[in-house]
Amino acid sequence: MALTADQEEEVAAARAASAQTRRPTVPALEALLFRALPVLDHGFVRVVDYMGDDAAVVQAARVSYGRGTRAANEDRGLIRYLMRHRHSTPFEMCEIKYHVKLPIFVARQWIRHRTANVNEISARYSILDREFYLPAPTALAAQSPANRQGRGEVLAGAEAARVLDLLREDATRNYDHYLDMLNEGEDGKPADPSRPGLARELARMNLTLNAYTQWYWKTDLYNLFHFLSLRADSHAQYEIRVYAEAMMDTVRAWVPHSAEAFSDYRLGAVTLSAQMVSVVRRLLAGEAVAQESSGLSKREWREMMDSLGRGDG
Amino acid sequence: MALTADQEEEVAAARAASAQTRRPTVPALEALLFRALPVLDHGFVRVVDYMGDDAAVVQAARVSYGRGTRAANEDRGLIRYLMRHRHSTPFEMCEIKYHVKLPIFVARQWIRHRTANVNEISARYSILDREFYLPAPTALAAQSPANRQGRGEVLAGAEAARVLDLLREDATRNYDHYLDMLNEGEDGKPADPSRPGLARELARMNLTLNAYTQWYWKTDLYNLFHFLSLRADSHAQYEIRVYAEAMMDTVRAWVPHSAEAFSDYRLGAVTLSAQMVSVVRRLLAGEAVAQESSGLSKREWREMMDSLGRGDG
Amino acid sequence: MALTADQEEEVAAARAASAQTRRPTVPALEALLFRALPVLDHGFVRVVDYMGDDAAVVQAARVSYGRGTRAANEDRGLIRYLMRHRHSTPFEMCEIKYHVKLPIFVARQWIRHRTANVNEISARYSILDREFYLPAPTALAAQSPANRQGRGEVLAGAEAARVLDLLREDATRNYDHYLDMLNEGEDGKPADPSRPGLARELARMNLTLNAYTQWYWKTDLYNLFHFLSLRADSHAQYEIRVYAEAMMDTVRAWVPHSAEAFSDYRLGAVTLSAQMVSVVRRLLAGEAVAQESSGLSKREWREMMDSLGRGDG
Amino acid sequence: MALTADQEEEVAAARAASAQTRRPTVPALEALLFRALPVLDHGFVRVVDYMGDDAAVVQAARVSYGRGTRAANEDRGLIRYLMRHRHSTPFEMCEIKYHVKLPIFVARQWIRHRTANVNEISARYSILDREFYLPAPTALAAQSPANRQGRGEVLAGAEAARVLDLLREDATRNYDHYLDMLNEGEDGKPADPSRPGLARELARMNLTLNAYTQWYWKTDLYNLFHFLSLRADSHAQYEIRVYAEAMMDTVRAWVPHSAEAFSDYRLGAVTLSAQMVSVVRRLLAGEAVAQESSGLSKREWREMMDSLGRGDG
Repeated sequence: MALTADQEEEVAAARAASAQTRRPTVPALEALLFRALPVLDHGFVRVVDYMGDDAAVVQAARVSYGRGTRAANEDRGLIRYLMRHRHSTPFEMCEIKYHVKLPIFVARQWIRHRTANVNEISARYSILDREFYLPAPTALAAQSPANRQGRGEVLAGAEAARVLDLLREDATRNYDHYLDMLNEGEDGKPADPSRPGLARELARMNLTLNAYTQWYWKTDLYNLFHFLSLRADSHAQYEIRVYAEAMMDTVRAWVPHSAEAFSDYRLGAVTLSAQMVSVVRRLLAGEAVAQESSGLSKREWREMMDSLGRGDG
Repeated sequence: MALTADQEEEVAAARAASAQTRRPTVPALEALLFRALPVLDHGFVRVVDYMGDDAAVVQAARVSYGRGTRAANEDRGLIRYLMRHRHSTPFEMCEIKYHVKLPIFVARQWIRHRTANVNEISARYSILDREFYLPAPTALAAQSPANRQGRGEVLAGAEAARVLDLLREDATRNYDHYLDMLNEGEDGKPADPSRPGLARELARMNLTLNAYTQWYWKTDLYNLFHFLSLRADSHAQYEIRVYAEAMMDTVRAWVPHSAEAFSDYRLGAVTLSAQMVSVVRRLLAGEAVAQESSGLSKREWREMMDSLGRGDG
Repeated sequence: MALTADQEEEVAAARAASAQTRRPTVPALEALLFRALPVLDHGFVRVVDYMGDDAAVVQAARVSYGRGTRAANEDRGLIRYLMRHRHSTPFEMCEIKYHVKLPIFVARQWIRHRTANVNEISARYSILDREFYLPAPTALAAQSPANRQGRGEVLAGAEAARVLDLLREDATRNYDHYLDMLNEGEDGKPADPSRPGLARELARMNLTLNAYTQWYWKTDLYNLFHFLSLRADSHAQYEIRVYAEAMMDTVRAWVPHSAEAFSDYRLGAVTLSAQMVSVVRRLLAGEAVAQESSGLSKREWREMMDSLGRGDG
Repeated sequence: MALTADQEEEVAAARAASAQTRRPTVPALEALLFRALPVLDHGFVRVVDYMGDDAAVVQAARVSYGRGTRAANEDRGLIRYLMRHRHSTPFEMCEIKYHVKLPIFVARQWIRHRTANVNEISARYSILDREFYLPAPTALAAQSPANRQGRGEVLAGAEAARVLDLLREDATRNYDHYLDMLNEGEDGKPADPSRPGLARELARMNLTLNAYTQWYWKTDLYNLFHFLSLRADSHAQYEIRVYAEAMMDTVRAWVPHSAEAFSDYRLGAVTLSAQMVSVVRRLLAGEAVAQESSGLSKREWREMMDSLGRGDG
């Protein structure tokens, strides 16, 4: 369970409030607002604010005085044109803010995206929750023998149990020692008055990288798409990809035309190098082309043939 | 007049629309939304969207699940603390979007602030309006004899008239030649069918730097404060300062606690160098300190004495 | 001529100086250092400093203690891999600084690239040079009838002469009035002592957008590639493309492996949307596919067929 | 010891290489180049490349064709002027690149500075070193009773020993289990061939936050000063402050005038709010002012009095 009863109550209170606004408003996203979408065993993503909609992209592209919309059909066409030709600035006119709970090792990947605003809970001030990420059986993967960065088969049986035991025991023990070093009772007074507690900013170093942290993370739609293109990709680590996928759902509710264009022209797109274009031209002209004479490395040849549906190439 | 009748109508239509939202909403800013606040002779600033409020700053600083507010008084205190200690990230959680009409030479200063999102009307696609900035008599300043970057006395009489005539005639003639080179009628067809029109992307180069352009400009509250601290300052050029002042009014309506803290700890603040601190310490201890023995240059001495109300120093 | 005799002398002096360094050094770029590469009629680009080389990209990707290089061949392969898979951060480890002289309307496009450092000559302090961009006959293009943003045929004969006359006369007259309003002699004293000069920050507004400005512009290799991918592209306006092309020459001298990978995987690459990939798969399987049943718009169909060498498609 | 014998050899080889360059070169920084300056128990900072010098700041401010320098004295004065008036862009013209080894919890603070380029060693690809930060006795601080974010007295005797034992044992055990789950021998083959190894990207989550990581970190001088103003400050956590202090030494060797101006106008400066200025004016006029009538909170009053040397205030 990601939220405590108190937190659920705060969320319910936030959802119950409502006001009139002249701003662009998206009912499908309002329906999701503040709700925690569960991710991994203790994490979540929730949209806590947003600004703009598909029409705001159009309005910015046209620098218009009103909503910028003409026929809905024209708007969709313009958005697809902008996405296809990599016009970035109109998509920067929409903004979204998430509250995310996530393991620290995932947060360390995520934070590498620099064009976002972040407020993370500080373990210099606060005591972190007693929650650690433990992979589900289906996510407990062995190292890929072929790819230094990849996952192979899923561990099973005794081996899986052994690894999960190690992860759970080490995280739990380290957390217990963290509390012990802090020596703080629930009332903020020393649990054991006979000794001082270690400074919070030091005690936290005993935590493991699967401990959960949380932050407010705010970005514009263009940079969100960039984040999603890297993190919703099949090469991304599973533990961050599931966050990206939950966020992709919120984007579809928020800006459906932009999300569709993003799927067609970015997520589902294939980029061919100059050499690959030359090979495809020859293939389309009916020529038989072999890897050896293609100018492509074996690896590139395989990647290209896979994406063009000629896995036998 | 900054807006045409058509544009006024578009604005009125945008203002008439209204929707329910669960998002933080600020009635005082809603009242201003979409309205063009006039600046200079043909320019304006208008807020076209916003996200967050004073409570969002507090919420981010506390990484809380709900609104983050406790007593209003505590919120104000926390915001002042954050501003005083230059905590930047909570203020980044609020976002605002303006539509601005401004002379090109002002736009060139403005755009140097890189942490914002911008969509400017493109003179490669569009024909710019026939509007140029001509200074009001009170703004027609001579070069300062003392300061290479500053303004001196206001020009008067025949001299003022002569300068205004030159500015008006040159801008008007150049704009007329711009239209002539474009050779486009109102219907998009050649005004003179016997000759081709020059490409828009080339013809625009005949315009003067006081021609008006317009853009959507979106930024977060932290970076907006940075912009305002530089551009609402008395050292800023008058023609950009008036935009900053109009924006300052919108910020006061939007986030009153943050705006107050900004005025107290940034706009109205004075920074003393290490040497200046040492002088003030000696002065407070009752010592007589002269510039010569202060470790300060004459210029720094004068600047410090002015800000400490000892202009006679 | 882009540089005055004094400036040429300063450049020669800078080129004559030399020092020992332990830093990565690129002789081919050292040979170009400080030299003004002419662009347009009065502009130039010159490299004034740089940091890193191809090996620095490799070193960062490997986070190694030494130069990071193994066999030169392995380095090239790694750089190509990084470029193909859009790894951005290793390319950010190289930095280059240019001094550029360029027309103001080109500067206004250029400055939209925000991830760079810029110091532009200030017309609040300084008096700009008496130089304006006037297109060469081959660049004097008519508006494209098909594309609102594009160029069509080149103007010729009397029409060309008329346009050039207008551009020259307006720019010259406005510059003369600029000087007249400033009322500054060469010695900094009033040219006409009987009247005050208009403030520089105001007088500049009479200049035309083809007046030349200049700046120092510094960026990292990743962001430079992004700039070049947009501005060395055939859709870019000619007047900025020629700057990008001159810079591309300096990049080839500086980081030959990275420049080659950039040409292969970015400049010469083609991105196919999800729908386009599906069409190519069907074509490669020997199926006849028509635009109508392709899921592509006519425009997209034409763009794809052009890039795949089937312009008759 | 921060570097292995192999690494020391790589560093020595890099230091032995030398080349001629026309670029600005700083002998005092060349002397430090590539050398690891030790920080904490296993960490270091080393400068691996740089670009520009004090003269480059001056050159950019003047947008000059040559080195930009006049008399050395004038350069110093201009640099101080730029720093005092918070001109940021000329300082952005210098760039420096560090290689840093640091505990993960320090890296997590550091990375919040977004205007830098970073390449961190990836625990998805590589196996981290068996090194953890264990505080020296003088750094083993208790939680401050007064300040939720601060440190109090240093732990001593049995209490200190107990905490250090916990930190050492937990970090060591978790690292051993990390290796055990990886099941990789030195030759990259399974240590125990009878079972698969856990994927590296998963096994790393068992590490503690005091494990060491390393990265290349590159930034410009303006943003470096911003980093140092926050992290070399007495409110910064000790474990990041020692890195900032080592870097401050490298900055003094690199750009002595800029570093001096930074110390005087930023590090050693005091900012007075509007209310504080008013109090200081009254005090200087000989008036007795009490906190109650000052408009300042008790906390602000105390902070101001401390910085003005009237701690008894």
